[in-house]
Amino acid sequence: MRKVLNILAGLPDAGQGEVFETLAQGRDVLIERIVSRGQRSAEGFWYEQEREEWVMVVSGSATLLREVEGGVESVELRPGDFITIPALQRHRVEWTDPAQVTVWLAIHYPS
Amino acid sequence: MRKVLNILAGLPDAGQGEVFETLAQGRDVLIERIVSRGQRSAEGFWYEQEREEWVMVVSGSATLLREVEGGVESVELRPGDFITIPALQRHRVEWTDPAQVTVWLAIHYPS
Repeated sequence: MRKVLNILAGLPDAGQGEVFETLAQGRDVLIERIVSRGQRSAEGFWYEQEREEWVMVVSGSATLLREVEGGVESVELRPGDFITIPALQRHRVEWTDPAQVTVWLAIHYPS
Repeated sequence: MRKVLNILAGLPDAGQGEVFETLAQGRDVLIERIVSRGQRSAEGFWYEQEREEWVMVVSGSATLLREVEGGVESVELRPGDFITIPALQRHRVEWTDPAQVTVWLAIHYPS
């Protein structure tokens, strides 16, 4: 039986690296929790994913960059903030709070 | 451009009925916010959905019932609690807190 879990329970320290955990998955859909503590995407690295990503910051604080027509947009995310990143939109994590864990809920799904 | 929204912003009163809002969707995937205030499933009504449902209570408080082998299980959900309801598992909302809104994040996706 699948039991009740809590999105903020059993949080890893994440001091040595981001921690990715699958919460649920289906055919071509992934629901995951990501815990960060101060990490950012590697210099010059941009995600460019084949699926849409709906992502919410559950706790903590982060800044994303994403490429938009005409430039790069900075997106600040605080608890409860969510955004949809379209498939193939280049984006990167520019900053996560080093003073606390940032907990993300990310859903990857086909367009 | 799709902008940043907050899962707890613009909450409807929901006193006259549950409010369902689509946050994002893809091919056969739906991400929605549901706001309840004291509602429960109609007497004798059980959901029996063709897709999996991953559901989290973001704020408020609720009780689900679901059919399991050998009977019915009661599942209490508090903020941050989530559960995966398999496709075709019969379930119902038995209770939501009448004293505050309960905000659900629900993701429906193929098995």
